[in-house]
Amino acid sequence: MFKKVIIIGTGLIGGSLGLAMKNKKLARTIVGFSRHLENARKARKMGAIDYIGKDLETVKDADLIILATPVKSIIEISSRIKDKINKNCIVIDVGSTKQAIVAKLDTIIPNFVGCHPLAGSEKRGVSNLENDIFKDSICILTPTPRTNTKVLNRIRAFWKRMGAKVVLVAPEKHDRALAFTSHLPHAVAFALISAIPDNYLSLSSGGLKDTVRISASDSELWAQIFLSNRQKLLTAINSFQKKISTLKLALENKNEKFLIGIIKKANQQREKLR
Amino acid sequence: MFKKVIIIGTGLIGGSLGLAMKNKKLARTIVGFSRHLENARKARKMGAIDYIGKDLETVKDADLIILATPVKSIIEISSRIKDKINKNCIVIDVGSTKQAIVAKLDTIIPNFVGCHPLAGSEKRGVSNLENDIFKDSICILTPTPRTNTKVLNRIRAFWKRMGAKVVLVAPEKHDRALAFTSHLPHAVAFALISAIPDNYLSLSSGGLKDTVRISASDSELWAQIFLSNRQKLLTAINSFQKKISTLKLALENKNEKFLIGIIKKANQQREKLR
Repeated sequence: MFKKVIIIGTGLIGGSLGLAMKNKKLARTIVGFSRHLENARKARKMGAIDYIGKDLETVKDADLIILATPVKSIIEISSRIKDKINKNCIVIDVGSTKQAIVAKLDTIIPNFVGCHPLAGSEKRGVSNLENDIFKDSICILTPTPRTNTKVLNRIRAFWKRMGAKVVLVAPEKHDRALAFTSHLPHAVAFALISAIPDNYLSLSSGGLKDTVRISASDSELWAQIFLSNRQKLLTAINSFQKKISTLKLALENKNEKFLIGIIKKANQQREKLR
Repeated sequence: MFKKVIIIGTGLIGGSLGLAMKNKKLARTIVGFSRHLENARKARKMGAIDYIGKDLETVKDADLIILATPVKSIIEISSRIKDKINKNCIVIDVGSTKQAIVAKLDTIIPNFVGCHPLAGSEKRGVSNLENDIFKDSICILTPTPRTNTKVLNRIRAFWKRMGAKVVLVAPEKHDRALAFTSHLPHAVAFALISAIPDNYLSLSSGGLKDTVRISASDSELWAQIFLSNRQKLLTAINSFQKKISTLKLALENKNEKFLIGIIKKANQQREKLR
């Protein structure tokens, strides 16, 4: 499918993509970059990449570049590679927010497609690479009117080969939706685990553990995601705060019927989650 | 261990206790009561109880009575059985809040021990009975100065045979802790899933699913739990609201360093969860 692939950021998503591409024989050669040499070495040892990239000049004969760093670095790196890549090279990113990234990369890279595989995990980093984390996952592609249709179809086929179900969503709608379905749950999980006094933690069960699982997510990565989707996340937090205030009011008023109604609605909404 | 056991409420916890007691041969005869005859029949069919109780007179020769109904009914039923049971009969409950229940039952039942097995699930009811839901779970016992030591030791041994790790906690502390570690996460999960617009739900991954798993919990059961621990849950919600407001402030101020600090603290707190 591709001759020379460059993966910039060989963490959980980037590394797992490399591993899956090698296993499915979708790439002849994969060159990996990482901020930390140690991680790139691990990725090579695990078979996720063939070579460790020395400098960015190597992008010049690549036919696919995957930007798999945190959000801010994706934008920075795009500026550094734009004049080095050949005109047929396809560039994709796997960032968790899309509006800012797509606004920038869409104008400076000829064959760019924004991607967001919903296959991350609170377990970051190369040690958690898995071959099939994309199997049965959803991958959101965020094409714009500038996106080349042939390139889009190729990338769509690429993600399907990874086992993902592909959905096309405009960048702005992507960020609005993910503010609610991913960034808000992270914000809530961070706040929830922080609110619990230390000495009560041992008196808990699987319910708490699941509810705060994602509070183990990486701080630097998530601060960047939050800030790159700031306004939409604030809107989502406001909606959530209203819901918790309503529940609190029902509790203050000892209104059992109202409380049951609130919980029943939550049950119904929960049912709609696939 | 027991000759005649009465289980009032043959749902997930009551039914699973019956099943485990039969499998471990801890009870010669188990009589089960349920509000819905259908559930009692299912429990009998599954081998969780031997007989379906006809009326409460049958408690008179029981040596163990397990109250496994929602919180309000536990208190109501205790008044109805107190004059029928023999003086050596042990009564335990498995309610999710303890202060109100223990305050009442401790005074009217000679051999009472409040229990809270942390082994519930959002899947309520007899169809979800499992033999080993108590294995490796925590069971909190809430003795008071009135609790008979021999009875306490017998009940402690009983839960150990069920595979649970037994912890003794005063009823008031139990309710304070569980307000944070169980009731607050439920309130948060109910509010979170309700805040997400319907049309965004499909753009989500396992992170959201885990975070709101317990939002599928039963409305009647949980409204009663919330109301029976109202003041302490309000305190917990207030703490949580402060944390989410702080996070929001960091976001409003675009303060990346502050945001990273908040998330790092959450990471550390999450680490402390067993």
